[in-house]
Amino acid sequence: MRHFAEELEELKQALLEMGALVESSIHTSVQALTERDDRLARRVKEDEGLINKMELDLDARVTRLLALNQPVAGDLRLLVMCLKINTDLERMGDLSVSIAERAISLNKLNAPLGQPLLEMPRMASIVEDMLHRTLDAFVKRDADLARAILRTDDEVDALRDTVYKALIATMRTEPHLVDAAVHLMFIARSLERIADHSTNIAEDVIYLVRGIDVRHHAAEEI
Amino acid sequence: MRHFAEELEELKQALLEMGALVESSIHTSVQALTERDDRLARRVKEDEGLINKMELDLDARVTRLLALNQPVAGDLRLLVMCLKINTDLERMGDLSVSIAERAISLNKLNAPLGQPLLEMPRMASIVEDMLHRTLDAFVKRDADLARAILRTDDEVDALRDTVYKALIATMRTEPHLVDAAVHLMFIARSLERIADHSTNIAEDVIYLVRGIDVRHHAAEEI
Repeated sequence: MRHFAEELEELKQALLEMGALVESSIHTSVQALTERDDRLARRVKEDEGLINKMELDLDARVTRLLALNQPVAGDLRLLVMCLKINTDLERMGDLSVSIAERAISLNKLNAPLGQPLLEMPRMASIVEDMLHRTLDAFVKRDADLARAILRTDDEVDALRDTVYKALIATMRTEPHLVDAAVHLMFIARSLERIADHSTNIAEDVIYLVRGIDVRHHAAEEI
Repeated sequence: MRHFAEELEELKQALLEMGALVESSIHTSVQALTERDDRLARRVKEDEGLINKMELDLDARVTRLLALNQPVAGDLRLLVMCLKINTDLERMGDLSVSIAERAISLNKLNAPLGQPLLEMPRMASIVEDMLHRTLDAFVKRDADLARAILRTDDEVDALRDTVYKALIATMRTEPHLVDAAVHLMFIARSLERIADHSTNIAEDVIYLVRGIDVRHHAAEEI
């Protein structure tokens, strides 16, 4: 049996690899939209299969480590976090697929959605960066970095609200754009939810480092 | 220290209590819409605070049981599942709040949305029943019951698609109903996502009972 610390390190690396693939899926799903390229959208769907396999593999590894090493305190907390982060990453992969599917529908419609459409790459870029920094905070056990992510989430929410408002105005005045606007609204919603998952992970990191649970504002000091 | 089996039983009971509160939140959030009663919507928000506390408490209990008893095999799998079910239940609570908030907005608009609005209580009732049967399957370790839930999820998806189509048609022909239709569309989406979380739990139950992972169709025989 290999050393427990070594296995933990490998587990973290596997989680990071999964995170990198999810990040690339988010990017590609929005690129499929902006470049009107259905092949990119299909690639996101293929990558989802891989992400799903990674999730199953990670769960199995964590369960095995719990059974064989029966860790306590910090190591136990780390393994429980890995299970939760794993779930969040897999859901982000699902949301990327949902974006990719709506990109394919939107590409068919070729609708002039103007500014809201232009906001998508910007929103995606913030969301990808959030995920990247979140996993960085996890690896470095950096609670300050994790806290900064909670603030970025508010930014994403504000951006989503702006997009919603613009799209509702478009639908009111241009009924022929309703289908397209609905697709874009759900894409903005998916991006915002991806950001929420990063926020979940960031909260987990703060708990891991500080040992306080900041979910649902259980601790006042954050 | 109490007997481990006894503690596991208490943990299951706590999870069921949380499930019952989530079920009631789903029901109340849609009732707030159909009865145009903002007080009911506010009650859902209050209950969310309680659900969040239950989530934190359950996570802490599972972590403690892992540390103190260092279970293996079936018991370990049960505890890992409890962590995942806990997360699913908490997200369902969040989605109920999201429905309740949109119910408040819709109640203000008093928009004649016709059939799609009438579908909401029906959709909610299926979704509540799904959650109830899912937790029943969990307690009874009944894989057949859990499998039936995966089929009900397809029913919910179909219902959501019908609602989407009707709302898009409404928005195209009655621009003054756009705001209201968007709210209702997101409510249908939240109900469908609550059903997805039941599906997640049902898949976990099948894994718990059969020891095979049906997530992402890892097993062919379901």
